[in-house]
Amino acid sequence: MLKIIEQIKPVDKVVGDEVRAYLDTLTKPQGSLGKLEELAIQLAEITSKQFPVVSPPGIIVFAADHGIASEGVSAFPQEVTTQMVYNFLNGGAAINQLAEHIGALFEIVDIGVANPIDSEKLISKKIRNGTANFLYEDAMSKDEALAAIEVGIEAAQKLILDGAKCMIFGEMGIGNTTSSSAVLAALSQGEINSLVGSGTGISVEQREFKVEIIKQALLKRKPNQDDALDILAKLGGLEIAGMTGAILGAAAMKTPILIDGFICTISALIAVKLCEHVRDYLIIGHKSEEMGHKVAIELLDKGAILDLNLRLGEGTGAALAYPIVEASTKILNGMATFTSAGVAQKDVR
Amino acid sequence: MLKIIEQIKPVDKVVGDEVRAYLDTLTKPQGSLGKLEELAIQLAEITSKQFPVVSPPGIIVFAADHGIASEGVSAFPQEVTTQMVYNFLNGGAAINQLAEHIGALFEIVDIGVANPIDSEKLISKKIRNGTANFLYEDAMSKDEALAAIEVGIEAAQKLILDGAKCMIFGEMGIGNTTSSSAVLAALSQGEINSLVGSGTGISVEQREFKVEIIKQALLKRKPNQDDALDILAKLGGLEIAGMTGAILGAAAMKTPILIDGFICTISALIAVKLCEHVRDYLIIGHKSEEMGHKVAIELLDKGAILDLNLRLGEGTGAALAYPIVEASTKILNGMATFTSAGVAQKDVR
Repeated sequence: MLKIIEQIKPVDKVVGDEVRAYLDTLTKPQGSLGKLEELAIQLAEITSKQFPVVSPPGIIVFAADHGIASEGVSAFPQEVTTQMVYNFLNGGAAINQLAEHIGALFEIVDIGVANPIDSEKLISKKIRNGTANFLYEDAMSKDEALAAIEVGIEAAQKLILDGAKCMIFGEMGIGNTTSSSAVLAALSQGEINSLVGSGTGISVEQREFKVEIIKQALLKRKPNQDDALDILAKLGGLEIAGMTGAILGAAAMKTPILIDGFICTISALIAVKLCEHVRDYLIIGHKSEEMGHKVAIELLDKGAILDLNLRLGEGTGAALAYPIVEASTKILNGMATFTSAGVAQKDVR
Repeated sequence: MLKIIEQIKPVDKVVGDEVRAYLDTLTKPQGSLGKLEELAIQLAEITSKQFPVVSPPGIIVFAADHGIASEGVSAFPQEVTTQMVYNFLNGGAAINQLAEHIGALFEIVDIGVANPIDSEKLISKKIRNGTANFLYEDAMSKDEALAAIEVGIEAAQKLILDGAKCMIFGEMGIGNTTSSSAVLAALSQGEINSLVGSGTGISVEQREFKVEIIKQALLKRKPNQDDALDILAKLGGLEIAGMTGAILGAAAMKTPILIDGFICTISALIAVKLCEHVRDYLIIGHKSEEMGHKVAIELLDKGAILDLNLRLGEGTGAALAYPIVEASTKILNGMATFTSAGVAQKDVR
C-alpha cells in the first residue's frame, strides 16, 4: 500500500482559530472580506503558520492517453494529446500564459502519452503508452496505478522542495472526461446521465453515446465502490492517477493544493477516499461548465472560488484563482489593526 | 451641463468581432475559456485594440462624509471616515494591500470628508465638509454635485495620463450604503426593503430603522426619477458623485472601468443614466453581500466576475477581479493558434 498516507496529518485547527481571531482585529468590518478570510484561515491551518505564504506557486501538468478515445467519445482526435504536449513545451497553450501570469514554477510530466515525445524540458515518466480501452479490459493494472501515483508524489514533492508553496495540478489527455465520469459514477453510484458532460465540445448525440459507453463499461468492469484503487485502475487514467499522487504528496508536505476542473477534482476525490485528512488541504479553484464537476465538488463538501464557465482543464481555472488565494495572505500580513491605526471600533448598541 | 458626455463614444464592435474570431483559432476548444473570452472581446471593444493592455491598473479611492450618518444608520461612528483616510495614507487598509498585490497606481481623494485632513499624499478636493442630512434637506446642491463630478473626471483622467490602463474606483464614507440605497430606490422605483442591506454590519432592528429613514427621505426629497443629477444631489454623496465623474472621465478616454461593490455600482448607474454609451465600458468586478447590489447589477444588465461574499468597499472587490481581467489579455496575446502549433482541429462528424 501507499506509505505516503501515514505522512499526511490533520491540519492545524489551533492556528486557524488564532488567525480567525486576528482577522477580526484588522481595520475592516468583521467578516467583510468573506471568502478571502476563509482562505486565510484555511492556509494557516494547512501550513501551521499564522502568516502563511503561497508564493511562488507550482504547476504540474500530467499528460496521458486513454484507450477509450478509440470509441469516438471526444471531439478531438487522440494525437492532440501529443500535439498539445509540444504546445506546452513551446509555451503556446493557455496554461503557459497563466503560469507566467502568476509567476509559477511549471513542469510537464509525460505519464502515459501514446506517442514517444522527446524533449529535455519534459519530465518523462511514461508508465505505459496510454491506458487500455476500459470498455473491453481494465484501463491499467493496480501496480500501474500505484506506479503512476508514485510518479505524482515524486513530481509534486520535488517542485515543493524547489520552492513551490501552493500546488496546482493540470492535465491533458483526449478522452479523460469520459474516464473521469466513469470514475465519478463508480465512486458516487450516482445517475450516470447527470455525470457526463460535453468535454471539449461534442454534440448532443455524441454525449448520449458517451453515456452509453460508460454504462456498458461499468457493467463490464464491476469496480468496487469502496476501493478507490480498484476504480482508478479499472476506469481511470494515468494522468488522473498522477494527479492523485501529487495531491497526496503535497498534503504530506503541508502544502495548499488549488484544485482545477472536473478531472482534477476526480483525482482529489480518489485522494480523499485514500486518506480523509487530504480534504482539508484542498481549495477548489473554480466550478467548470463540465456537467459532473458540480457533483464532484459537492462530494468534497466544498465551495469553489470562481465560476467563469471554463471547460479547458490544463490547470487553467486553478491558475486564475491563485491571485485570490495569494491576496488572502497579503490581507492577513499587511493590514493594520483597529488599535495600531487608531480607528474607532463598531458602535455597541 | 456636462461637456464630457459628448466625448464618450460607442465602443468598437468591429474590433470586438475580429477578436472573437481570432479567439476561435487559438489552441483550446472554442469558447472553453468562458468569461475570460468575453472579457478579452470587451476590452478590445473598449480600447479599439486587437491586443488590449490593462496593466498597470489605477485605483482612486474617494472619501466623503454623509449628513445622514447622524441618524445612526451605520454600525460605525462618523469619525471612522477620517480615521480610515489616514489608514489609507499609512498603507494599513485592505485596499492598500490589494493595490500593491496588483501593481496599481493608487490615489486617495478627499472630496468631502467632514474633518480637515492634512497630508501631501492626499488629493484634497473637498467640495464641502460632508453632505447635509437628506432626511431634512437636499444632500447637496446641483452645482456641488456637478463640481464633485468634475473632481472625479479630473482625477481619473490624470491617472490615465500617468499611465493607468484599467480604472478601479473605491470609496470610504460612513453612511454611504444608506445614501446608495436611497439613490437606487429613486432610480429604480423598486421596493425599498429589498434595496437596503446591513452595510458594515448593523442589526436587524437597525436595518428596519434604515429602511424607514430612506422611505421618509424619499417622500420628503421627491427626487425626479428621470433626472439622475436631481437624484444625486438630493440623496447622493460626494464620493458617489466623484466616482460617477471618474467613470465618465475614463469612458471618454476609452479606458476599461472595473466596478467594485454596491456604492460604486450606484455611481455607475448614475453615469449610465447620464450617458448610455458608458454601459459598455463597465466590467463588474464582483457581486457583494450588500442586499441592493444584485438589483443594481441587474439594472446595468451585467454579470459579475467574482462572488466572494465581500462587503467592504474601498475598491477591494474590483482589485481582486483585476488579475482575471489581465489574464484575458495574456491569453489573447500569448497563445498559439492551431495552425502555428500544428495541433489538429476538432473532428467534423
